Amino acid sequence: METTDLPDFKVHNKTYKFTTRGEMDFIDLSEDIQEEVYKSTIKNGIVHVFAPHATGVLILTENDEALLEDIKVFLKELAPKNEGYQHPSNAHSHLRSMILPPDKTLPVIDGKVEFGVWQSLLFVETDVYPRERTIHIQVLGEL
Amino acid sequence: METTDLPDFKVHNKTYKFTTRGEMDFIDLSEDIQEEVYKSTIKNGIVHVFAPHATGVLILTENDEALLEDIKVFLKELAPKNEGYQHPSNAHSHLRSMILPPDKTLPVIDGKVEFGVWQSLLFVETDVYPRERTIHIQVLGEL
Amino acid sequence: METTDLPDFKVHNKTYKFTTRGEMDFIDLSEDIQEEVYKSTIKNGIVHVFAPHATGVLILTENDEALLEDIKVFLKELAPKNEGYQHPSNAHSHLRSMILPPDKTLPVIDGKVEFGVWQSLLFVETDVYPRERTIHIQVLGEL
Repeated sequence: METTDLPDFKVHNKTYKFTTRGEMDFIDLSEDIQEEVYKSTIKNGIVHVFAPHATGVLILTENDEALLEDIKVFLKELAPKNEGYQHPSNAHSHLRSMILPPDKTLPVIDGKVEFGVWQSLLFVETDVYPRERTIHIQVLGEL
Repeated sequence: METTDLPDFKVHNKTYKFTTRGEMDFIDLSEDIQEEVYKSTIKNGIVHVFAPHATGVLILTENDEALLEDIKVFLKELAPKNEGYQHPSNAHSHLRSMILPPDKTLPVIDGKVEFGVWQSLLFVETDVYPRERTIHIQVLGEL
Repeated sequence: METTDLPDFKVHNKTYKFTTRGEMDFIDLSEDIQEEVYKSTIKNGIVHVFAPHATGVLILTENDEALLEDIKVFLKELAPKNEGYQHPSNAHSHLRSMILPPDKTLPVIDGKVEFGVWQSLLFVETDVYPRERTIHIQVLGEL
């Protein structure tokens, strides 16, 4: 089989750590993701973003202060804090993470992450106290 | 390293544009996605579908007229239109897009997108007026 | 173009079948996914998990018995069974599947699926009777 007419293909992995300031802290990862795509030198493919946490969330949304306040209220109503849950202490954190899972994939075209004009990728802390969090950023594609 | 016993690997990108007819317009993309997979000549891998919009949604569901009516009611109740939001004019559109993000990945096996029998991929307009929308379809895999 | 300094790249596909015991049965797929990654001999990349079903769900969560009871209650309240839906018999099953779609991607680094300590991937039956279900597990990456 002849491979010489196809571009080289590779995987670029980056593990990124940060500390959140507590419940409903928002961290915008959009620039970090674009920076890893530049470093990877990958031109066409995907970037996969994943948080290995059962009480964290990744969302695609407009990063607008008023909207983030609306999102806080929305999440509080969707999975309220005190509902007589069976799981102790942070069941609401788990339910929010289940419904907004920390698993997002974005297109990479000509070396650029194809975010829409009003679209950012944010991590949302759903646990009840500040925590150290990990994000895996992986770029897969053609050089 | 020897590569001659592995199949060739590539990325096929297609950007697709269309105009929606307004809030809660549904557009079935299933056939367009299968067509791009055929064109790519990729046999095994994934197809990633992404809308670069903060007020658009991609859903996997049965494309049945009665069910689409149920989905409209469900989305209206999940994120109602007039809730005293802080973000002006279309916060409900953003909340619906956040909870049903426009990011879906489907398996490609033997050149076929492995939709279930009752499963289609639909774009749902969640903004409040007709808009021009973009979809990135990317096929990654072995020829 | 020179490919000899890049690792080999491949796709490993596995289709997995099982029978559920009825509505709200939970099946933990985490070990099956890790096993397919081992078999693939892929070291760096992603594993994509997909259920070709319009009334099935994949969730990332802690596999804790008390929490699974909370999740049952949460799903029942999110999309209740008898709401005067237009779609006959199982509209609530479809709504639950739409909002928790059976499409998840996980990072593979050094041959290991990067689940968090408290994170598992579970299939949830949302249809109203026991069914035979299919899961496609695909590993894409570098050997």
